[in-house]
Amino acid sequence: MKVKVAVNGYGTIGKRVADAVNLQKDMEVVGVTKTKPDFEAKLAVKKGYKLYVAIPERIELFEKAEVKVEGTIDDLLEKVDVVVDCSPNKVGAENKPKYEKAGVKAIFQGGEKSHVAEVSFNALANYDDARGKNFVRVVSCNTTGLARFISVVKSVADVKKVRATMIRRVVDPKEDKKGLVNGIMPDPVRLPSHHAEDVKTVLPDVNIVTTAFKVPTTLMHVHGISIELDGKLEDIVAALEDEPRIMLISEEDGFTSTAKIIEYARELRMRYDIFENVVWRESLAIHEGELFAVQAIHQEAIVVPENVDAIRAMFELADKEESMKLTNESLGIKK
Amino acid sequence: MKVKVAVNGYGTIGKRVADAVNLQKDMEVVGVTKTKPDFEAKLAVKKGYKLYVAIPERIELFEKAEVKVEGTIDDLLEKVDVVVDCSPNKVGAENKPKYEKAGVKAIFQGGEKSHVAEVSFNALANYDDARGKNFVRVVSCNTTGLARFISVVKSVADVKKVRATMIRRVVDPKEDKKGLVNGIMPDPVRLPSHHAEDVKTVLPDVNIVTTAFKVPTTLMHVHGISIELDGKLEDIVAALEDEPRIMLISEEDGFTSTAKIIEYARELRMRYDIFENVVWRESLAIHEGELFAVQAIHQEAIVVPENVDAIRAMFELADKEESMKLTNESLGIKK
Amino acid sequence: MKVKVAVNGYGTIGKRVADAVNLQKDMEVVGVTKTKPDFEAKLAVKKGYKLYVAIPERIELFEKAEVKVEGTIDDLLEKVDVVVDCSPNKVGAENKPKYEKAGVKAIFQGGEKSHVAEVSFNALANYDDARGKNFVRVVSCNTTGLARFISVVKSVADVKKVRATMIRRVVDPKEDKKGLVNGIMPDPVRLPSHHAEDVKTVLPDVNIVTTAFKVPTTLMHVHGISIELDGKLEDIVAALEDEPRIMLISEEDGFTSTAKIIEYARELRMRYDIFENVVWRESLAIHEGELFAVQAIHQEAIVVPENVDAIRAMFELADKEESMKLTNESLGIKK
Amino acid sequence: MKVKVAVNGYGTIGKRVADAVNLQKDMEVVGVTKTKPDFEAKLAVKKGYKLYVAIPERIELFEKAEVKVEGTIDDLLEKVDVVVDCSPNKVGAENKPKYEKAGVKAIFQGGEKSHVAEVSFNALANYDDARGKNFVRVVSCNTTGLARFISVVKSVADVKKVRATMIRRVVDPKEDKKGLVNGIMPDPVRLPSHHAEDVKTVLPDVNIVTTAFKVPTTLMHVHGISIELDGKLEDIVAALEDEPRIMLISEEDGFTSTAKIIEYARELRMRYDIFENVVWRESLAIHEGELFAVQAIHQEAIVVPENVDAIRAMFELADKEESMKLTNESLGIKK
Ligand SMILES: NC(=O)c1ccc[n+]([C@@H]2O[C@H](COP(=O)([O-])OP(=O)(O)OC[C@H]3O[C@@H](n4cnc5c(N)ncnc54)[C@H](O)[C@@H]3O)[C@@H](O)[C@H]2O)c1
Ligand SMILES: NC(=O)c1ccc[n+]([C@@H]2O[C@H](COP(=O)([O-])OP(=O)(O)OC[C@H]3O[C@@H](n4cnc5c(N)ncnc54)[C@H](O)[C@@H]3O)[C@@H](O)[C@H]2O)c1
Ligand SMILES: NC(=O)c1ccc[n+]([C@@H]2O[C@H](COP(=O)([O-])OP(=O)(O)OC[C@H]3O[C@@H](n4cnc5c(N)ncnc54)[C@H](O)[C@@H]3O)[C@@H](O)[C@H]2O)c1
Ligand SMILES: NC(=O)c1ccc[n+]([C@@H]2O[C@H](COP(=O)([O-])OP(=O)(O)OC[C@H]3O[C@@H](n4cnc5c(N)ncnc54)[C@H](O)[C@@H]3O)[C@@H](O)[C@H]2O)c1
Repeated sequence: MKVKVAVNGYGTIGKRVADAVNLQKDMEVVGVTKTKPDFEAKLAVKKGYKLYVAIPERIELFEKAEVKVEGTIDDLLEKVDVVVDCSPNKVGAENKPKYEKAGVKAIFQGGEKSHVAEVSFNALANYDDARGKNFVRVVSCNTTGLARFISVVKSVADVKKVRATMIRRVVDPKEDKKGLVNGIMPDPVRLPSHHAEDVKTVLPDVNIVTTAFKVPTTLMHVHGISIELDGKLEDIVAALEDEPRIMLISEEDGFTSTAKIIEYARELRMRYDIFENVVWRESLAIHEGELFAVQAIHQEAIVVPENVDAIRAMFELADKEESMKLTNESLGIKK
Repeated sequence: MKVKVAVNGYGTIGKRVADAVNLQKDMEVVGVTKTKPDFEAKLAVKKGYKLYVAIPERIELFEKAEVKVEGTIDDLLEKVDVVVDCSPNKVGAENKPKYEKAGVKAIFQGGEKSHVAEVSFNALANYDDARGKNFVRVVSCNTTGLARFISVVKSVADVKKVRATMIRRVVDPKEDKKGLVNGIMPDPVRLPSHHAEDVKTVLPDVNIVTTAFKVPTTLMHVHGISIELDGKLEDIVAALEDEPRIMLISEEDGFTSTAKIIEYARELRMRYDIFENVVWRESLAIHEGELFAVQAIHQEAIVVPENVDAIRAMFELADKEESMKLTNESLGIKK
Repeated sequence: MKVKVAVNGYGTIGKRVADAVNLQKDMEVVGVTKTKPDFEAKLAVKKGYKLYVAIPERIELFEKAEVKVEGTIDDLLEKVDVVVDCSPNKVGAENKPKYEKAGVKAIFQGGEKSHVAEVSFNALANYDDARGKNFVRVVSCNTTGLARFISVVKSVADVKKVRATMIRRVVDPKEDKKGLVNGIMPDPVRLPSHHAEDVKTVLPDVNIVTTAFKVPTTLMHVHGISIELDGKLEDIVAALEDEPRIMLISEEDGFTSTAKIIEYARELRMRYDIFENVVWRESLAIHEGELFAVQAIHQEAIVVPENVDAIRAMFELADKEESMKLTNESLGIKK
Repeated sequence: MKVKVAVNGYGTIGKRVADAVNLQKDMEVVGVTKTKPDFEAKLAVKKGYKLYVAIPERIELFEKAEVKVEGTIDDLLEKVDVVVDCSPNKVGAENKPKYEKAGVKAIFQGGEKSHVAEVSFNALANYDDARGKNFVRVVSCNTTGLARFISVVKSVADVKKVRATMIRRVVDPKEDKKGLVNGIMPDPVRLPSHHAEDVKTVLPDVNIVTTAFKVPTTLMHVHGISIELDGKLEDIVAALEDEPRIMLISEEDGFTSTAKIIEYARELRMRYDIFENVVWRESLAIHEGELFAVQAIHQEAIVVPENVDAIRAMFELADKEESMKLTNESLGIKK
């Protein structure tokens, strides 16, 4: 029996989660929701997803646009075991009562406060904490990127203090109303930034401090990381080389910026999705007891495997190793 | 017997042409060339292309980088019937003597002057002019976009005068050294622009005048077109709807900018390649005897089907209808 | 006796209008308003403007921030003869009843619908229409740019049809929340665009058709213009050379883009304000009975002299020639 | 007797240095050089600078363009005591033999390697090291920003280790050929970056480690700084408040990004020059023994006061306090 999954909010994250879930043998997408009958809604139908209306009052809009829907989110919730909420920031919390009422498990995304769920989740960092839980939050793209990197380093070195600077893409590529066109924005201005706290929701014992900025690009975030630690560079490099969710790249191969990384990804996967942390090999160095690293994070894709693993943990379908292996294989995440 | 094709210059255009040629039943890629052993070279090998060195002196670089090559461009030319030159602007003309010496046919791209070839080419506009020719130039992305649109309109209306303004992406997405970061550049400043002359290389009888600008974006060009004509809007819309190399989109569906078009294309094809002119349905209007239209052109992809058709014309493998049909089917260009 | 002027909305346009009014001998700024005690408010005070609160309920915010205010907009309106409303798009219309109640004349900006006022205004195009009026709307930056150019051409040639494409900066330089980061947006998609109608509010007899696009830059708009006409290029160039509100520049001098124009303006005036249409000399050409031109418009500054002239017209302080001369001299607009 | 100054290379830095030198009572600009008769050259003449040709062979270009020149750089060097070389990166070193032959002192900019000069210079950090020297290099904009901030902190706290991340504007605003349009570029990829070494040329005893990135903006660099230290936040804030070359700003006042800072600067100084480090007040915090700070650096202007001070040090015209005071007063740098 497959776990029956609803995706509430078929947007940037939702459409990727739906496709990833559908690639798994132990789960299936029963339906996805949209609030408007736009091209994303039409694509969902074209791809064979059953479409439901996220905001029941809007069902007419879909009828008028001749986009076939199967019902509303309420109808959908009756048919599933778990809903992956991929609605916009803060909306997940508003949706939660619906899920409770329908008696379904739910996964929330990083745009929600951590207390929306019983536990925050990152597969490498704390898979087991989500076992059997009903409400789980997959941490944000930036937190996922940091949690993975730190988890791998921690596995072979004694991590004392992490410092990370996040240089964030200001909007996703599809966005054409918001942005920062020419400038750099400290976000937040008040330091250190709240991101460190978010990392601690999945790696509570790590001493970490963060700062963050927004810059006018759409492609990827970039993290400058330094970690005070006891450990050897070669062990760390080996551990990073071993972990499928980390992709090591080389400036020597022409990877001079996130623009080149995306150019590469366009050849590899649909939507140029990069589920892995992309770490520059040449950036890795130990200097005065501190590991340096630069990694690029494809914000649109990186949390996708984590959502799949979270479902497995919540339904205890598999242990960490097995779940990650299944997810990786299905998504083409490999060394 | 398949036509044996070499792709000289496996860059933005070259890699797309190689993949497209490989999808045809009547032709095959014998080898592709690179000047540096970078990630694009490695991807070519990974995809199964035989790699040759475009600049023979650089063979050592490849050896040092442990990228397997089969020889140099000279070796490759011995094995093929036609070379598709996809080297940078102006370099095609420098390469031509090599092709002549090797006795192979050659296709050049739009970055070359028109006199590099016997004829300039756009499938819809002048397929037959390339029949049996040895040297053909596929016109640039902007010219291809205009030539297609005008050809379709001409088929159902009496075109008197075309005016077009090209708003051009300043660099391709992979470029990270060149650009215009914040500004608008008339290019050329001197009006009218030379682009009109380029359109006339494939549509000699059209009265056309053009202006062009560069703007800080990487995704697509946009053309504002107005055509003085005798004809009916409904006939023109029907003709555009009929032509597979034109894709009609609607603002109503959420297509508000090139950012949204690319978001859509990411779901449709690898590398989000859009081989079609993308025309906004709502932009089409006749006002005081003039047709108005706005179209977006994916500069990286639009000339790809034209290169395939050019090969067929040069080897007289098929007539226009048949060639375009084969190319369209293989590339997923359909209504 | 000087005309007493209030500036309601000390933002991008308001602060420039205030400074310009203050440079005139026949008018004076009595006060300016802000809605928030931010750095713009503090600068107003530092520059010696009396500050009033545009939204009375917010007076506490200013007190808390220790920014000295003289009262609210209602207090200010009692002291003035005319208010220049520089509030955001559509807000001017909401403010109008206040002005009527206070019995003061008012100028609105281009973000308002034309029926907010008795007449729309551009000094070169229709100065006399505003004589003695109580409610006048200064047309938008794009319309001002077109109206000026066409007026000058009309003075020496028989204009038959104007076609203009506007390539618009997506946001002003200070904006850091809105934008289009990577893309081109037809705005509007539906053609021809409404801008032509706006030009006709000040040049009713001109046959004009327009299209418009937004692009990710902050500095200036650029217009590609073509005008079917009877006339001589040399007369047109001479007329443009004669008109102080037109600045002719040359690509030869290094003006390759709006970035270079702004670099130049940074040396000339505070805030790099360019009150003139900036026309590329090399772009001017007559081709098949059609004049071609490319001009750049500094959206933040171009309407400033027009606001000053509008005040003179409304109070019949001077005729067109004299007003424009006074405004030009005070603002350093000269040949 | 005033020190006679030549500015070789009247570009972004050169034109600012020329204006700043001209504001000093103890020095004067004898002439400036250009390599092309473009608008910058014409502006120099219009401003009253005597213009010389930097590359003697090009004198004809100026004649053809009817831009009046007084001679070549060689003629100019005969008339001066010191040349401020503001030519492009690496060109200063090529120019040095000319200066040696002419027997004039010379100042180089941060684009040169440190060994081009006897000493690298930052007024706050090591004014006295340049006393009486013949060849001095003013460190780069980024290094100047860091050196100033650290110098102030060091004056009231015991600095143990500095970590800084530089988020750099990719090109200056006037640049329209180079850039990074959509992406983030680690520059360098190899960590830690060479910038730390450059800081040590003026602050040799500071333990500092740096990383740097380029992002698609033109306005300012932004630095995220953390400093392990013994000291009190209030002392540090007080010291920063005291130092004229530091400007403290508040997010509360609406300073949310570099876009807003520049909007403010446009009201303050011609060319919106910001000679000060701009430090966000809210970013200042001590967390686990580490000071956090975010500062924005106006790359075009920040080294200007340093060039003036360097001249005074080289000719022993004044001691550090006095020179900085004179420079500050003349440039409007004040608290
Ligand atoms: N985009 C990213 O880079 C990214 C990365 C990691 C996590 N996230 C998080 O994922 C979540 C979704 O973000 P996104 O970028 O996919 O947003 P999105 O705007 O692309 O998609 C949100 C979708 O939710 C739908 N929606 C709107 N209101 C809804 C409602 N009341 N109920 C259900 N659906 C509704 C919208 O129609 C849209 O399809 C957010 O919490 C965000 O913080 C986003
Ligand atoms: N990129 C576009 O948007 C676009 C669109 C239509 C047409 N074109 C035209 O296509 C041609 C190729 O442009 P591109 O964008 O693919 O460039 P590109 O820089 O992406 O690729 C050019 C390739 O040629 C190789 N090369 C360099 N020197 C060479 C030589 N001497 N011989 C053979 N190969 C060499 C390079 O290694 C590179 O792989 C140009 O004529 C261009 O004007 C480009
Ligand atoms: N910015 C441009 O490029 C430009 C060019 C030409 C015309 N305009 C027009 O000028 C007008 C002002 O635009 P802007 O760019 O200066 O906007 P802005 O946002 O820079 O300034 C608007 C000012 O109005 C104030 N304000 C907000 N609500 C108010 C209210 N209820 N009453 C009074 N003041 C209020 C704000 O505090 C702000 O200071 C708009 O109509 C706009 O369309 C703008
Ligand atoms: N622009 C910045 O942000 C910045 C900041 C700090 C330091 N710097 C440094 O200042 C120096 C100048 O940079 P810039 O940004 O002003 O460059 P720029 O390109 O704006 O100006 C350089 C000037 O030098 C002239 N020039 C070219 N060749 C010359 C030659 N052989 N001899 C004399 N002059 C010549 C050019 O005509 C131009 O006017 C570089 O070392 C740079 O690294 C620049």
